Amino acid sequence: MTWKEKLHEVIYEADTKAGKLFDVILLIVIIISLVLVMLDSVDYLYEAYHDWFVIAEWVITIFFTIEYALRIISIKKPSKYIFSFYGIIDFLSTIPLYISLVFAGSGALLTLRALRLLRVFRVLKLAKFTGAGAKISVAINNSLPKILTFLYSVIIVSFIAGAIMYMVEGPEHGFTSIPRSIYWTIVTLTTVGYGDIHPVTPIGQFVASIIMMMGYGVIAVPTGIVSAEMVKEERLHNNTQDCFNCGENKHQ
Amino acid sequence: MTWKEKLHEVIYEADTKAGKLFDVILLIVIIISLVLVMLDSVDYLYEAYHDWFVIAEWVITIFFTIEYALRIISIKKPSKYIFSFYGIIDFLSTIPLYISLVFAGSGALLTLRALRLLRVFRVLKLAKFTGAGAKISVAINNSLPKILTFLYSVIIVSFIAGAIMYMVEGPEHGFTSIPRSIYWTIVTLTTVGYGDIHPVTPIGQFVASIIMMMGYGVIAVPTGIVSAEMVKEERLHNNTQDCFNCGENKHQ
Amino acid sequence: MTWKEKLHEVIYEADTKAGKLFDVILLIVIIISLVLVMLDSVDYLYEAYHDWFVIAEWVITIFFTIEYALRIISIKKPSKYIFSFYGIIDFLSTIPLYISLVFAGSGALLTLRALRLLRVFRVLKLAKFTGAGAKISVAINNSLPKILTFLYSVIIVSFIAGAIMYMVEGPEHGFTSIPRSIYWTIVTLTTVGYGDIHPVTPIGQFVASIIMMMGYGVIAVPTGIVSAEMVKEERLHNNTQDCFNCGENKHQ
Amino acid sequence: MTWKEKLHEVIYEADTKAGKLFDVILLIVIIISLVLVMLDSVDYLYEAYHDWFVIAEWVITIFFTIEYALRIISIKKPSKYIFSFYGIIDFLSTIPLYISLVFAGSGALLTLRALRLLRVFRVLKLAKFTGAGAKISVAINNSLPKILTFLYSVIIVSFIAGAIMYMVEGPEHGFTSIPRSIYWTIVTLTTVGYGDIHPVTPIGQFVASIIMMMGYGVIAVPTGIVSAEMVKEERLHNNTQDCFNCGENKHQ
Repeated sequence: MTWKEKLHEVIYEADTKAGKLFDVILLIVIIISLVLVMLDSVDYLYEAYHDWFVIAEWVITIFFTIEYALRIISIKKPSKYIFSFYGIIDFLSTIPLYISLVFAGSGALLTLRALRLLRVFRVLKLAKFTGAGAKISVAINNSLPKILTFLYSVIIVSFIAGAIMYMVEGPEHGFTSIPRSIYWTIVTLTTVGYGDIHPVTPIGQFVASIIMMMGYGVIAVPTGIVSAEMVKEERLHNNTQDCFNCGENKHQ
Repeated sequence: MTWKEKLHEVIYEADTKAGKLFDVILLIVIIISLVLVMLDSVDYLYEAYHDWFVIAEWVITIFFTIEYALRIISIKKPSKYIFSFYGIIDFLSTIPLYISLVFAGSGALLTLRALRLLRVFRVLKLAKFTGAGAKISVAINNSLPKILTFLYSVIIVSFIAGAIMYMVEGPEHGFTSIPRSIYWTIVTLTTVGYGDIHPVTPIGQFVASIIMMMGYGVIAVPTGIVSAEMVKEERLHNNTQDCFNCGENKHQ
Repeated sequence: MTWKEKLHEVIYEADTKAGKLFDVILLIVIIISLVLVMLDSVDYLYEAYHDWFVIAEWVITIFFTIEYALRIISIKKPSKYIFSFYGIIDFLSTIPLYISLVFAGSGALLTLRALRLLRVFRVLKLAKFTGAGAKISVAINNSLPKILTFLYSVIIVSFIAGAIMYMVEGPEHGFTSIPRSIYWTIVTLTTVGYGDIHPVTPIGQFVASIIMMMGYGVIAVPTGIVSAEMVKEERLHNNTQDCFNCGENKHQ
Repeated sequence: MTWKEKLHEVIYEADTKAGKLFDVILLIVIIISLVLVMLDSVDYLYEAYHDWFVIAEWVITIFFTIEYALRIISIKKPSKYIFSFYGIIDFLSTIPLYISLVFAGSGALLTLRALRLLRVFRVLKLAKFTGAGAKISVAINNSLPKILTFLYSVIIVSFIAGAIMYMVEGPEHGFTSIPRSIYWTIVTLTTVGYGDIHPVTPIGQFVASIIMMMGYGVIAVPTGIVSAEMVKEERLHNNTQDCFNCGENKHQ
């Protein structure tokens, strides 16, 4: 086993002690880097400690750069890693500080580092959460096409309802354009209801009431889809007791 | 096959290449026409490019007019198309610009064009989405009478709760009339909660809390209805394995 | 059949033509009376047409009074009707105008008439809706004790979370008292979110985030309860095909 | 049976009449103490009756102190009670007034008494609610790991979406820092939607719309989880009829 193979085992796998340790350290650095970015975005912390944050961010950027380099070195086909989902995330979350050297004011890009949090899922893949997570994933994946079809219908309804509300309420009551009206419809249909825009005229409130009732009745649909999928999933996995009759364990 | 039959095949069906192409072009024109209407409703775009929008809208209106004429010509019983669901939508989304020639300020009617989006469902009927969509449709159709009965009960409760809140809070806290009070109740029961009207007195907040708890507990009902329907649907369709015993594949 | 028995049949039952007609007329009068009360509560309609509304309301009140008298006359045990659920509603929705003769300013009591809407359920009992409504009723009745237990837990959590938010945010950010704080918690837990009161301090927003996540995860509970009940209901009623083996049609 | 054993029976158990009576009295005192704390937090009641509230709170504190002492005396291993869940709650809800003697302004700690409400669950354990509550508990406990995995994913998505919205909207539209942006994302994803912070720019509203649609589609997940669990629970408990064939009553 060459040093490259050893490195590959530590970085890409988690079967050995060193591999697990690497994953945990990486996780901690990711969380620290995120906390730093978050704190640096708070006004009074920015004023008091910005210089320290910059130093800490450079340390983390260098750490990520080294990690990125090692990942490329230790894999046989570097292109496979570089253009993989995690490869792109690792790249995007490493470069912001280098960019800020060239272009001033691009510090906001540091928030791209939040994408690194997705790696947590990968680290956790190895943990005991897997059982619960796996079942959910299967059920969601199975119901995804149905949910997307559903959301697609919701979007079409939003366009129509948005256009109607634009006609009914008009710009003087906050419905200043059809896109904005559609935004309001989505806010309403999903029962979020900020209240930044809201119907004022009696007719507008009447139409809005109908839209709300629709959203209320219609939220049942994605829920029903996932529920049915989960019930199915449960039945398939838990029914381990073979039927004495036909010896078929999925015979319901 | 006469030219009318050929035209009918292209416009009304989607089995042939020409038919599919026609549907796709129609879909694209519908989307472009909608994007135009949306952009034209945005203030600063209106000021800068309104003239161009008007020209584009005339082009599209003429396109829709031709399409409408061809649909009438190529069908045996024109009345069948004219008074069909899509016939009315096609008509309503074609005429606004003609009306605006006669009556100034009726440009808002252009938003009727959003109704055309419904045609997307028809075009998509032929696509791979159908499987997922069909199952949802069946489940929703089956649970529709139950959901309507439920929404009907919600409306009655809204009337009673609205009348109570009008008495409790009164006009000085935004509950200026019973219809407005009912609007507030629907906003609350559906958990939208804009906050444009909200209880101010302790008694009002107490009654509102009860209404909210009801809305929260009661949202479970449509969800339960659709879930049960979906579970049933899943069971009927997925249980393809015949029971070895009785040879009945829907024997549960 | 005496005239009393005939009257009883017309008023209390709906098997005969006259009985159905009576129910429909009653329903129409109830709806008219409600529309009147609603319109009279609208400012500018009140100013323009209040006198006409008063006359119409007197006509309806007299109609209801006659109906009430006939109901008492035509039943064998008047006390059975008077103290029944619908008897009390009929009484409460009839007297407001008489009270307003004695006490000025008690016109708001007219909104009690909204209670009459509940009678709609009874009239509809005879209609085709029954199938859907009955199934929902059974499922809701069965899951009611569970939902109440759940809502009870939610209330306790609201008290504790309300007390915590009162400590964290305090009166200067709108959390002026513990009851008001509890009101806010209910607004948040049920995902209504008016925004009339909302956390301002970072700690308050953090605690609020936890409460919201709880409300979001916890809304699943009543839904799950009703879903399970509905699935059970569906299975019991739809499984009409006897198992060939054991002849038991509810054997799953 | 010594007096200590008798006392233990009365305080810790509820099989005897005296035990039940003790539980009910305790429950009433807890509720009274809470109502007092709540009322005392209301401005004008505080001004008018604060002195009376203080006296009443001292009476209740002394009652709780005695109860606490008796619980320690009557149990064999006092440490077992003191460090139990209820032991800690009893302690925390008893001491606030004593602390306020030493440190002025610590009156807010009295709200800790709300924790006592949790004891209600224990008292109710003995009541008829148990059936319904137990089933819910089992179903919730079983689905807890899945719901936590789900909420964990929601939190990660909140971080990423929060960071994106901070970049898109920026401090001038209320998204003053990333933590605050994350708070907004949670408010939106859970469909609470206060409206204290809301997107203003078209791009922000577009991104927000996507987040809302996600929250709307995603609320189905915990619901589906609990539903599946409840359906399973129902099936296991209600299927008491043995299959005639195989004599297995859980054979589905």
